[in-house]
Amino acid sequence: MLQTFASSISSLLDARALGHSLPAGLYTREDVFEADLDVFFRRHWICIGLECDVPEAGDATVIDIGKTSLILLRDDDGQIRVVHNVCRHRGSRLLDAGKTIVSKLVCPYHTWTYELTGELSHAPHMGKGFDKECRSLKPVTLKSIGGLIYICLSEHPPEDIGHLEHVMAERLAPYDVRNAKVAYETDVIEHGNWKLTIENNRECYHCSANHPELCVSFVDLDFGFDPETLSPDDRAQAEEHFELYAKRTEQWENDGYPSAAVEQLVFCSTNFRTQRLIISGAGESQTPDATAASAKLLGSITRKDLGDTHLWGHNSWKHFMGDHAVVSTIIPLSADTTLVRTKWLVHKDAVEGVDYDLEKLTSVWVATTDQDAELVARNHAGVEDPAYIPGPYSPFTETNLDKFATWYIDRMRAHGY
Amino acid sequence: MLQTFASSISSLLDARALGHSLPAGLYTREDVFEADLDVFFRRHWICIGLECDVPEAGDATVIDIGKTSLILLRDDDGQIRVVHNVCRHRGSRLLDAGKTIVSKLVCPYHTWTYELTGELSHAPHMGKGFDKECRSLKPVTLKSIGGLIYICLSEHPPEDIGHLEHVMAERLAPYDVRNAKVAYETDVIEHGNWKLTIENNRECYHCSANHPELCVSFVDLDFGFDPETLSPDDRAQAEEHFELYAKRTEQWENDGYPSAAVEQLVFCSTNFRTQRLIISGAGESQTPDATAASAKLLGSITRKDLGDTHLWGHNSWKHFMGDHAVVSTIIPLSADTTLVRTKWLVHKDAVEGVDYDLEKLTSVWVATTDQDAELVARNHAGVEDPAYIPGPYSPFTETNLDKFATWYIDRMRAHGY
Amino acid sequence: MLQTFASSISSLLDARALGHSLPAGLYTREDVFEADLDVFFRRHWICIGLECDVPEAGDATVIDIGKTSLILLRDDDGQIRVVHNVCRHRGSRLLDAGKTIVSKLVCPYHTWTYELTGELSHAPHMGKGFDKECRSLKPVTLKSIGGLIYICLSEHPPEDIGHLEHVMAERLAPYDVRNAKVAYETDVIEHGNWKLTIENNRECYHCSANHPELCVSFVDLDFGFDPETLSPDDRAQAEEHFELYAKRTEQWENDGYPSAAVEQLVFCSTNFRTQRLIISGAGESQTPDATAASAKLLGSITRKDLGDTHLWGHNSWKHFMGDHAVVSTIIPLSADTTLVRTKWLVHKDAVEGVDYDLEKLTSVWVATTDQDAELVARNHAGVEDPAYIPGPYSPFTETNLDKFATWYIDRMRAHGY
Repeated sequence: MLQTFASSISSLLDARALGHSLPAGLYTREDVFEADLDVFFRRHWICIGLECDVPEAGDATVIDIGKTSLILLRDDDGQIRVVHNVCRHRGSRLLDAGKTIVSKLVCPYHTWTYELTGELSHAPHMGKGFDKECRSLKPVTLKSIGGLIYICLSEHPPEDIGHLEHVMAERLAPYDVRNAKVAYETDVIEHGNWKLTIENNRECYHCSANHPELCVSFVDLDFGFDPETLSPDDRAQAEEHFELYAKRTEQWENDGYPSAAVEQLVFCSTNFRTQRLIISGAGESQTPDATAASAKLLGSITRKDLGDTHLWGHNSWKHFMGDHAVVSTIIPLSADTTLVRTKWLVHKDAVEGVDYDLEKLTSVWVATTDQDAELVARNHAGVEDPAYIPGPYSPFTETNLDKFATWYIDRMRAHGY
Repeated sequence: MLQTFASSISSLLDARALGHSLPAGLYTREDVFEADLDVFFRRHWICIGLECDVPEAGDATVIDIGKTSLILLRDDDGQIRVVHNVCRHRGSRLLDAGKTIVSKLVCPYHTWTYELTGELSHAPHMGKGFDKECRSLKPVTLKSIGGLIYICLSEHPPEDIGHLEHVMAERLAPYDVRNAKVAYETDVIEHGNWKLTIENNRECYHCSANHPELCVSFVDLDFGFDPETLSPDDRAQAEEHFELYAKRTEQWENDGYPSAAVEQLVFCSTNFRTQRLIISGAGESQTPDATAASAKLLGSITRKDLGDTHLWGHNSWKHFMGDHAVVSTIIPLSADTTLVRTKWLVHKDAVEGVDYDLEKLTSVWVATTDQDAELVARNHAGVEDPAYIPGPYSPFTETNLDKFATWYIDRMRAHGY
Repeated sequence: MLQTFASSISSLLDARALGHSLPAGLYTREDVFEADLDVFFRRHWICIGLECDVPEAGDATVIDIGKTSLILLRDDDGQIRVVHNVCRHRGSRLLDAGKTIVSKLVCPYHTWTYELTGELSHAPHMGKGFDKECRSLKPVTLKSIGGLIYICLSEHPPEDIGHLEHVMAERLAPYDVRNAKVAYETDVIEHGNWKLTIENNRECYHCSANHPELCVSFVDLDFGFDPETLSPDDRAQAEEHFELYAKRTEQWENDGYPSAAVEQLVFCSTNFRTQRLIISGAGESQTPDATAASAKLLGSITRKDLGDTHLWGHNSWKHFMGDHAVVSTIIPLSADTTLVRTKWLVHKDAVEGVDYDLEKLTSVWVATTDQDAELVARNHAGVEDPAYIPGPYSPFTETNLDKFATWYIDRMRAHGY
């Protein structure tokens, strides 16, 4: 007989063995998915977009997270706001998915009308005693960190976002992401649990076999390797690479560009890691030949050799290079599907076909994202198989996955699971 | 931690505040949907079609309500019957969806054969002792009220259908719906809970912003307005309209056409409302220019100025005009999808292209139904959002929604929830 | 009020009345489906394919059963193996659905590499202490019975497979299925519960009304009839047929071909039935005119008049004739969908267009399978209807369904339900 009652989420958390991938149910069960949405997408800070998604007053874009629909907009004073896309009358959606330009937010159902600040300014036939004051659109807590929009849907947002803010405000300043331009954007739906998407992103163990385009500019060794498995030649090359690393980091720091790794990956609320990484080959950018894709560099930057400032969060990864940036955010759609939204940023005045070629700008991460979607789907299918048992992470190339799994368990515990 | 056990349906019913839309769960939860199907579509009378859907002996049409499939047919004696579309052998469906003409009901699986009365007349290889008598197709309790087919799937059908029958038999008589012709029929699937479909139908607060075609002939003021919000001009016009109303109603009643509002909307089993409404403009019919679409009037009617006799039930709405009628019934498909089936009726001898133009006949309610589908979907999406909280109904334009919500709660309570 | 808690599976099993089809919930409920998968597709022997699906060393084919994915392959020594399609690292699928040729099994994610025996031979970056020995692909218990592959996913496979093995090894020997060729293969998804698929296969009560093509060669009387319902002519014909049966069976047995019915249908783990059946008309094969489709006969067979050796299991049915064989296996996909996979086998040296015409070879069972899919869907839809009540099996034509239902209940009880 099958166990009539599925084991509790708590016992799944107990079952996790250090150094190993998570028990299957944590990747596949619907109740765990609902808990994940609540813990990691409502009670933690998540990155949902960019100031430059809404460059002008009146620009608005809808972001759906599960059943929650948010409007990210710029109000008449140029201030960024996020409000819930739910009319305070009978709950109708105000805006459809996608981008739009608005002077007011008018509900199409009964024309209740809100200012861009969220205040209700018009509600016909509601009578004299009706109090508009208490019917503003519900606001959402947000922080713009160097132009990246972080929100928290809880009333008690974790305070350790401060560390991320402190570190990244300085590192992102030269890139002026706030005033960049979104040159291209893709939505890819991965057929896998969001944690497999994040695990996939946090190791480059799979890169050499799967990402020929990315490997031109990306150094898979950077995220760990087993020295014993390298040939003498490869080991010599690795040692050379790490010497170069130390040298470059020192130079960048001396030039005023903070570069050393900063990470807050376990026993914290806000999970992040940043480091200025070396770009291989031509050394400029994550493009097919590692040269810059955009002639106009980002923000106030004047040199192409600033490497790749990477930033991880638990729902995003980003790469800031001299000429462009790539920003990916993820939104879980169900236990086994995850939306990966990727944006390519260039200087706001860069002109397609003049300053940059769109194909060159986007092709590496378009290919990499598609390849990863394939791998995550394959991983999820196997994790759903009754024959799956958690396997060992490599102690060299997958230590960050082990940390992520540990953080995940700790956060679930912290929220009562 | 999320609450492990969802709140009970009973506590959702408790949570409903008078004057406000329902708590989200009552619109969205699967367990509530199952309860709704049981209470409102099995234990109450519902309108499922028309006598003129099956005008001749042997005509049959299949009507699916959830997993329940019914055959509405006219037997050899011209009697209307409704039987379950389930063979008494191993349960196979007898008829496919749609309309057909039959002399017997023969199960395609093993050729068990039933008369149009439902009696089993042939069952091969069942042996001598086999008792055909107790294997008739299961019959369904039905009432034809002026040609409208009401059924109740329970063994204890509510008795207060009598009031509806008494009122409508007289009002519908001149239209002779029993012998009308179905000129056109549409099925529209709305992506919303059936109660949002009904709420949408019971107010015209949303009409002016959404139904330009309907507003030519329909008077949105009829279903309430806030006199304070009207300009002096509009208020004068409204007063004029209601004077006209009183005069017209008196005239119609004097001419032998009952017209005053009759309603049974709260604290009853069978929910209905009827009234003879004024048609705007040319005053004849709900068409693009408010003139009659069919030259041949319905039944024994000889005048085009009889307004619009509307009739609501909890799963239907109908409009009977001099030249044609529009009859909509709804069938919930899931917590978030609802089938709206609409039929346009004309005199049985009216000929398309001669007596009526199909486009003129149907265009107003085709457009209105599509517009409402859009609004209901938008409303449902918002109600599913964790940010939704029940909002206030307008005390002028949405009093009938408040009554519907109150009736809903009362009926659920009456059935043990 | 609806019953808040659905009745237990055990009470559904209790509710089954002898001589009647199963209570609805046993065909429709998701929890019963999960129990069925566990009891009948993990703890019993099931037929999943053929040795000749993978004729050469390195041939591999993926078979998915629910979330379980298996690789059936022939290793370098020509041995048939079945292993789980789940990498021992983080669980990724090794092979995609379909057939392929491999020299090793290489996981595309991180290139962990397995020999065709399942042994892990390469796992980079795992460090010195890593033990490859305990990371072989999980093997599956299998038996090839005359070239038919039976597996059991449980650690305690039922022992009474021995009876099937003993009986069929001898009967199948002349057909040399092990070295046959799969000439054609179809996958049909039936919209019904797997038990309805099996019920449909175990009676020919529905044949005359639904399978004109099959009835040319198949004798529906063979699986029972009510003598009372036959006309004197038909009864004389039936008696003649059964005399012929006795005579033919005796002849075949004298010629060294075991032919009498052997069945193990109730109060056993492994459910099967076999018998050499007469072919009607030309008497050779299940083709449109009942003559052989392939000029080259199977295995060592030299005569076309050996009838049809049929074999049932609880997830398969098969017909072995002189010139070809038809093998169908079923895999439940959900409570209401079932995959029927059918293969047509001919002598390995038979050449399409020379020795056999593919259309003639396949058309009867292609048509029959499609017709059955229609009937099963119709049956399932009715069983889901709240109006369904279990109906009586014919005591003449459906005794094997009664036995199957009885076996089903007994097996569920044996596994703790």
